[in-house]
Amino acid sequence: MDLKIFSASSHPEFAEAICRHLNLSLGHAHSQVFSNDNRFVTINEPVRGADVFIVQTSSAPVDSNLVELLMYIRTLRDASAGRITAVLPYFPYVRSDKKDQPRVCIAARLTADLLQTAGADRVLTMDLHSPQIQGFFSIPCDHLLASPTIIKYLKAHWNLENYVLVAGDAGAAKMLKIYADALELPVAIMDKRREGNNEKPTIKGVIGDVHGKKVLLIDDEASSGRTLMRDVEFLLEKAEAVSADACIVHAVLGDEAVTALNTSAINRFVITNTLPTNTKPLKNKEVVDVSQLFAECIRRIHANESIKSLNDVA
Amino acid sequence: MDLKIFSASSHPEFAEAICRHLNLSLGHAHSQVFSNDNRFVTINEPVRGADVFIVQTSSAPVDSNLVELLMYIRTLRDASAGRITAVLPYFPYVRSDKKDQPRVCIAARLTADLLQTAGADRVLTMDLHSPQIQGFFSIPCDHLLASPTIIKYLKAHWNLENYVLVAGDAGAAKMLKIYADALELPVAIMDKRREGNNEKPTIKGVIGDVHGKKVLLIDDEASSGRTLMRDVEFLLEKAEAVSADACIVHAVLGDEAVTALNTSAINRFVITNTLPTNTKPLKNKEVVDVSQLFAECIRRIHANESIKSLNDVA
Amino acid sequence: MDLKIFSASSHPEFAEAICRHLNLSLGHAHSQVFSNDNRFVTINEPVRGADVFIVQTSSAPVDSNLVELLMYIRTLRDASAGRITAVLPYFPYVRSDKKDQPRVCIAARLTADLLQTAGADRVLTMDLHSPQIQGFFSIPCDHLLASPTIIKYLKAHWNLENYVLVAGDAGAAKMLKIYADALELPVAIMDKRREGNNEKPTIKGVIGDVHGKKVLLIDDEASSGRTLMRDVEFLLEKAEAVSADACIVHAVLGDEAVTALNTSAINRFVITNTLPTNTKPLKNKEVVDVSQLFAECIRRIHANESIKSLNDVA
Amino acid sequence: MDLKIFSASSHPEFAEAICRHLNLSLGHAHSQVFSNDNRFVTINEPVRGADVFIVQTSSAPVDSNLVELLMYIRTLRDASAGRITAVLPYFPYVRSDKKDQPRVCIAARLTADLLQTAGADRVLTMDLHSPQIQGFFSIPCDHLLASPTIIKYLKAHWNLENYVLVAGDAGAAKMLKIYADALELPVAIMDKRREGNNEKPTIKGVIGDVHGKKVLLIDDEASSGRTLMRDVEFLLEKAEAVSADACIVHAVLGDEAVTALNTSAINRFVITNTLPTNTKPLKNKEVVDVSQLFAECIRRIHANESIKSLNDVA
Amino acid sequence: MDLKIFSASSHPEFAEAICRHLNLSLGHAHSQVFSNDNRFVTINEPVRGADVFIVQTSSAPVDSNLVELLMYIRTLRDASAGRITAVLPYFPYVRSDKKDQPRVCIAARLTADLLQTAGADRVLTMDLHSPQIQGFFSIPCDHLLASPTIIKYLKAHWNLENYVLVAGDAGAAKMLKIYADALELPVAIMDKRREGNNEKPTIKGVIGDVHGKKVLLIDDEASSGRTLMRDVEFLLEKAEAVSADACIVHAVLGDEAVTALNTSAINRFVITNTLPTNTKPLKNKEVVDVSQLFAECIRRIHANESIKSLNDVA
Amino acid sequence: MDLKIFSASSHPEFAEAICRHLNLSLGHAHSQVFSNDNRFVTINEPVRGADVFIVQTSSAPVDSNLVELLMYIRTLRDASAGRITAVLPYFPYVRSDKKDQPRVCIAARLTADLLQTAGADRVLTMDLHSPQIQGFFSIPCDHLLASPTIIKYLKAHWNLENYVLVAGDAGAAKMLKIYADALELPVAIMDKRREGNNEKPTIKGVIGDVHGKKVLLIDDEASSGRTLMRDVEFLLEKAEAVSADACIVHAVLGDEAVTALNTSAINRFVITNTLPTNTKPLKNKEVVDVSQLFAECIRRIHANESIKSLNDVA
Repeated sequence: MDLKIFSASSHPEFAEAICRHLNLSLGHAHSQVFSNDNRFVTINEPVRGADVFIVQTSSAPVDSNLVELLMYIRTLRDASAGRITAVLPYFPYVRSDKKDQPRVCIAARLTADLLQTAGADRVLTMDLHSPQIQGFFSIPCDHLLASPTIIKYLKAHWNLENYVLVAGDAGAAKMLKIYADALELPVAIMDKRREGNNEKPTIKGVIGDVHGKKVLLIDDEASSGRTLMRDVEFLLEKAEAVSADACIVHAVLGDEAVTALNTSAINRFVITNTLPTNTKPLKNKEVVDVSQLFAECIRRIHANESIKSLNDVA
Repeated sequence: MDLKIFSASSHPEFAEAICRHLNLSLGHAHSQVFSNDNRFVTINEPVRGADVFIVQTSSAPVDSNLVELLMYIRTLRDASAGRITAVLPYFPYVRSDKKDQPRVCIAARLTADLLQTAGADRVLTMDLHSPQIQGFFSIPCDHLLASPTIIKYLKAHWNLENYVLVAGDAGAAKMLKIYADALELPVAIMDKRREGNNEKPTIKGVIGDVHGKKVLLIDDEASSGRTLMRDVEFLLEKAEAVSADACIVHAVLGDEAVTALNTSAINRFVITNTLPTNTKPLKNKEVVDVSQLFAECIRRIHANESIKSLNDVA
Repeated sequence: MDLKIFSASSHPEFAEAICRHLNLSLGHAHSQVFSNDNRFVTINEPVRGADVFIVQTSSAPVDSNLVELLMYIRTLRDASAGRITAVLPYFPYVRSDKKDQPRVCIAARLTADLLQTAGADRVLTMDLHSPQIQGFFSIPCDHLLASPTIIKYLKAHWNLENYVLVAGDAGAAKMLKIYADALELPVAIMDKRREGNNEKPTIKGVIGDVHGKKVLLIDDEASSGRTLMRDVEFLLEKAEAVSADACIVHAVLGDEAVTALNTSAINRFVITNTLPTNTKPLKNKEVVDVSQLFAECIRRIHANESIKSLNDVA
Repeated sequence: MDLKIFSASSHPEFAEAICRHLNLSLGHAHSQVFSNDNRFVTINEPVRGADVFIVQTSSAPVDSNLVELLMYIRTLRDASAGRITAVLPYFPYVRSDKKDQPRVCIAARLTADLLQTAGADRVLTMDLHSPQIQGFFSIPCDHLLASPTIIKYLKAHWNLENYVLVAGDAGAAKMLKIYADALELPVAIMDKRREGNNEKPTIKGVIGDVHGKKVLLIDDEASSGRTLMRDVEFLLEKAEAVSADACIVHAVLGDEAVTALNTSAINRFVITNTLPTNTKPLKNKEVVDVSQLFAECIRRIHANESIKSLNDVA
Repeated sequence: MDLKIFSASSHPEFAEAICRHLNLSLGHAHSQVFSNDNRFVTINEPVRGADVFIVQTSSAPVDSNLVELLMYIRTLRDASAGRITAVLPYFPYVRSDKKDQPRVCIAARLTADLLQTAGADRVLTMDLHSPQIQGFFSIPCDHLLASPTIIKYLKAHWNLENYVLVAGDAGAAKMLKIYADALELPVAIMDKRREGNNEKPTIKGVIGDVHGKKVLLIDDEASSGRTLMRDVEFLLEKAEAVSADACIVHAVLGDEAVTALNTSAINRFVITNTLPTNTKPLKNKEVVDVSQLFAECIRRIHANESIKSLNDVA
Repeated sequence: MDLKIFSASSHPEFAEAICRHLNLSLGHAHSQVFSNDNRFVTINEPVRGADVFIVQTSSAPVDSNLVELLMYIRTLRDASAGRITAVLPYFPYVRSDKKDQPRVCIAARLTADLLQTAGADRVLTMDLHSPQIQGFFSIPCDHLLASPTIIKYLKAHWNLENYVLVAGDAGAAKMLKIYADALELPVAIMDKRREGNNEKPTIKGVIGDVHGKKVLLIDDEASSGRTLMRDVEFLLEKAEAVSADACIVHAVLGDEAVTALNTSAINRFVITNTLPTNTKPLKNKEVVDVSQLFAECIRRIHANESIKSLNDVA
């Protein structure tokens, strides 16, 4: 089976970086939108029997990117691709993983179902909001973690003396522990009341001690940046931390968010390139490249090698 | 089973009109988009065991409306609705019903699959681009035709003397026959070469006689309006028709299309309200209301009555 | 994976021709009918892990041939064949592709479902009545066209001067265009009223000009031949064409039809061998062999090569 | 839910008898075969939400009747029937219930799958060749036994003194026991070697004693009658039984079989009307009517009443 | 549809309590184990068309109880029950909800799949280890919370002055917040390193302040009690809490665990009766009855009423 | 694809024997049970793309072994095994293959469904209680017979003069014939009345002659041994056989059964090692090893070779 990698529209530079690491050319395909706003996808090279990976991240417009991915997958299936792996560096609707209130849907499960209906044989993704989401799939789902790469980066480029790692809420606390254990730093957790899915929870305090400390907030995703800024404000003003930095795996940040964050008290931002944020004018951003990790994972999936070690903290 | 009707975001006035005809209130629900561009749908009243119809037409943004509909359906399913009927006055990706070239997908089939995966029990739609699309579903799909309503309108409000009905291509010719037979008018067919899915076919002539005739072009859909305008230009200038009107079931027409058509030689436009075109500043448009037809069909589906007669030309 | 080709009962000479082109022996299998009219199929050689193609065309008795094919497929599946491709030169129930009236079924979709339920992994067929039928499958369906082969034949063996191509109805007109474009001939379309599925539509006229012309009627299928004969009668007597020939991809023609056609005004018949019509005493028949095309397509499917070029008109 | 009963082509008098017992009119439907040997089924009355039973037995032509049934079921499903029960007095391919040899299929399982794919919600049948066949369904399958009715008949109309019940092979012996227990008669079993599915096993002897006895052979099915006649010949000539009668639930018997049996030494034939054998000129046949039993079972299924007692021997 | 409730073997007193609240008799059924250790289930009353709830909790022997439940469900399905709801007060394999390490399975997802394969139409359960598990189902899963009942109990019977609520790890912290918000108490979280699924994580400290406080540990499940005891020991000895109590929703506790806990420093245990622990000699246990809550939920599911309010904290 | 063989907990020596015959090492895996009686399975070596066979027989505890097998299969599937074959020397719930009474389930079908839901691609088993059970699978099920191996053993080690083969009931008689034909011995069948699934049928007599003969009872399974002992008692005391031996393929026999059988009049026991009975203190047992047969079958499945000859009696 030949290995072929295609890129949908959302993040071509990431797909190209993967190809570069693997010494491959990106597959030829074309995606356009007609005047009735209907998309049309063509694969412009044979894929019969090939081991195809199609790369699409969930940047805005989210639904359009999702449907485009479904069309790529279906097109590949009907073109007799041998195996189709959907590569989603940032997974769509990943935060909608439970029923916080009655009569809502678990959109991440819906998304998983749609990918399978379209014809995906496998999924490869990074830092799902909760690890339970792997259980939403009936097909193998390889789940990469950004933490080993970020931890390696922090160890190499940061002086972490006097730092406390801070989780924005109890849900983020579990993820924080991997960093805390590897970096041997204490942790604290914001104590909030968040109801339903509204975006303005009340901060009640901080569980753990940050007084006189440098805080590094770690989360899997930031979009509006508002939560982050409110936490930082509280940590510096009420909890008497001395400085604040942030580490965000999936930097969804729109233009408005970038503008706001650039005026915030946060000094440094560590983000990954699972989303096309490289060109965003976010001040002091430090981008950790995970494309090599995806490339190596794709190589191993193709070669039937174990990917176990890729998530090990060095 | 209670009958409940909900409206997704694309065409609330159509859903409200249906409710008005049925003497029902629209169901309470809410749909919003978060800062990460993820949509969030809530149903705000109980639907357990209810016979629910959710109305969404495929206006732009097409993919966003499609995914919103899928989320409504899944939410209703998980909220234990008794039966869920997706009501799609204009069906998404309806023109993508065959493989015109290798390595493309039949997006209308994909859409049908997605609706079923989300949890739809039935589909109700109007004027599918080809009647074969009904065969894409594994669930019952009720297919309404606009022709009886339009024919009734034309008979009541138009003087059809000296008219010839014109189909834009061989594919549209089959649909034309229903009108021709009912209105007892001759037909002609544009003779074109259309390759793949590109939008600019070459006009080779007209099969049938339009010389000295008033032409009424009939089609299931217009989006850019360009095909229509090229046909009209040919019919008037090369084929020596004396005037041109158009009847379009699904008026997808964007702003640019409306502007262009307003400067065209087309005198009158008959369209339906399957899409929210009522407020579009299309000159001389005559809107045929099909909401009563949908309402009656929903009533019959709910009451287990035959819908056969709804597609009969009076 | 070994390539193996089996033949069910309907058209062994076609399967043998495919094998000859591929330099293969036909697979050993046996099919018999017991005294309770139950069929019994045995595969008489190992097929574990093999890439198996089973050839069956939809000649009469249609249902018996369909069920025999389903039994072959299921037998191959349970015998652990690696991949099973159903090769159906003429697809069963191909004309039943839409709901022309209420409370009928789309039998072509049912047939597609049955093939998948039996265990087919792929389908290979020719000239489906409408291209939308490909959308009835959830498995890859390779769709060959007879037109490139027929066009090549006509160019080589016919003098097409003064010819007009005629489609029997609007539905057939789309298919006609491929021939018209390649042969650079004008077209005309019979104007009929056909209700439901009854077989006697009324001819209202001819759209397009055939006066003083030689007409070549082209259609995907003829069974009773009555439509063809009525069209020819009209074209010659009413529309003043000077001669009539016919080109039919799938010559279903029974004995009665052959007898009738032999007394008709049609001079030449071009047919293919998708059905075992070679031995039929149809006068002046010219059989275009498509077995080589099927053989080449099977070779490419087996070798994971693109089949795209097989449908290109030279 | 209204109760509606339709009859496919194989055994209309049986369906009518059921209707008569239930005081219902048979549903309006039509089934015809076109000149291309494609069948076309229409349901001619509304069935939306109805509780529909469609009656078809597996008489010859078996495959044609099977496909017709599948088309009825699919048509009913697409016409929004509320629940569809396939009523098969004699089930197709019921003897093909195991793999007697490699590379054959279990056609009864295939048949069960096809019925579900077409859209059947339930199945109602009688005297499956082996009770394990119920396990081939994923939908509820109600399995009626003819034995209570036949036993009641024999007790009422036969003098069973000096009788021995004889099973044609070990497989039939299990079924025989119900009769033996109820009629308090001894049993014997033909000792044969039957290889694969060929129809001529060798008789090695009789297990059990029939010397000087009247034998009554009991089996679920007879088609050619040859097995029966060979058994009788052996029993009378070699095993010295004094007379022979036969009781066959499903009398598949074709014309040739009837002729042969009429010349055989068998005195009396007890058969049921699961197949349209009433008009067959079988000498001395005694037909046990099971239509009332089917009618009562349908009534109970419709009314959600237990059918348990229907299989109890009185 | 009649409402019927059956009890499998694990927790008959809970099923009986539900019936008592609903003024119903428990359905008649029987479950036995043969000498080959194969279980055999019979339903001893008609269930055709009934709305059936089958109650089984996941006490030891877990696998035997799971398979028994699957057999009950399948038996009900094949006996034509109208709707089958599996009621699982404590869900099997609920802690196996993610892949903590490579090459393990998410057993809670497997369990969800098995229930659906057996034939369950709905699931009703309580306090899933993580709310994401609802996303493992393709059928509606109603998820009750014990917290409203427990909070009501604590408010009524406990003096909560000077208490701190303690979560055993970050994962449990989310659940804790419901209690903390309703009881207006501060929280603390054990800081541990837990690798893979081994049961002995290292306690690194407590995040939050418990010095001089009474601690109430809250968790969804306790089985060996070892984690609980190690936490309490640390809280009292290292973190200088003054007393320790525990509140456990699902008290899986075996005999050994009870013995150990009876010698521990934990004063009071609040547990529910989702598992048959009432007769366990756990000292100072206070059992909060949730059978009324399940009964009311079943009543509402049956009556198609909203269950939303059942999870509201009063 | 690499060939890998894993053993679940029930019969490791059998899996090891298979590996020895194939010159392979058993795959590394681990299965443990937590204090909440939840099992946890880990595969401790890469299996991506491998052709994996997992061996588990249905010894007691049956349900625990079944669930463990399902967990192994699911774990292998999620770990991207290339193909998973469940090897079940003795199949679970194999005797529950029909509905002997209303409102029971066909547990063997349920088991087949569960294996497929877990993710099995194939099944390999031996001596199913009835051959129809193969029809319960939608995946290929290879069915080995113990008879060729046992017949070879008996021919080599027994003097079969004056023997009669005896089947315990009509159901077992079919299986008996293979032995009778190969060993050229007469047969007899116990005549019993067995109602429902209770274990104490009444013996009415013996069909066939055993007077003065040595009887060898042959059955596919014995668990309590009671049926066997009652049969032997009758054969020796009432039917005047001179000695009794038994041949049982699947020796489920528990401790109590062994004790009882050791005091019975049965002289010799021939059993296979499909169950771990080798260490059971059954007197005079003669164990026929079938591990070589399974090993050869696995080799052929892996190599895509026909397994047909493995069931041929030499």
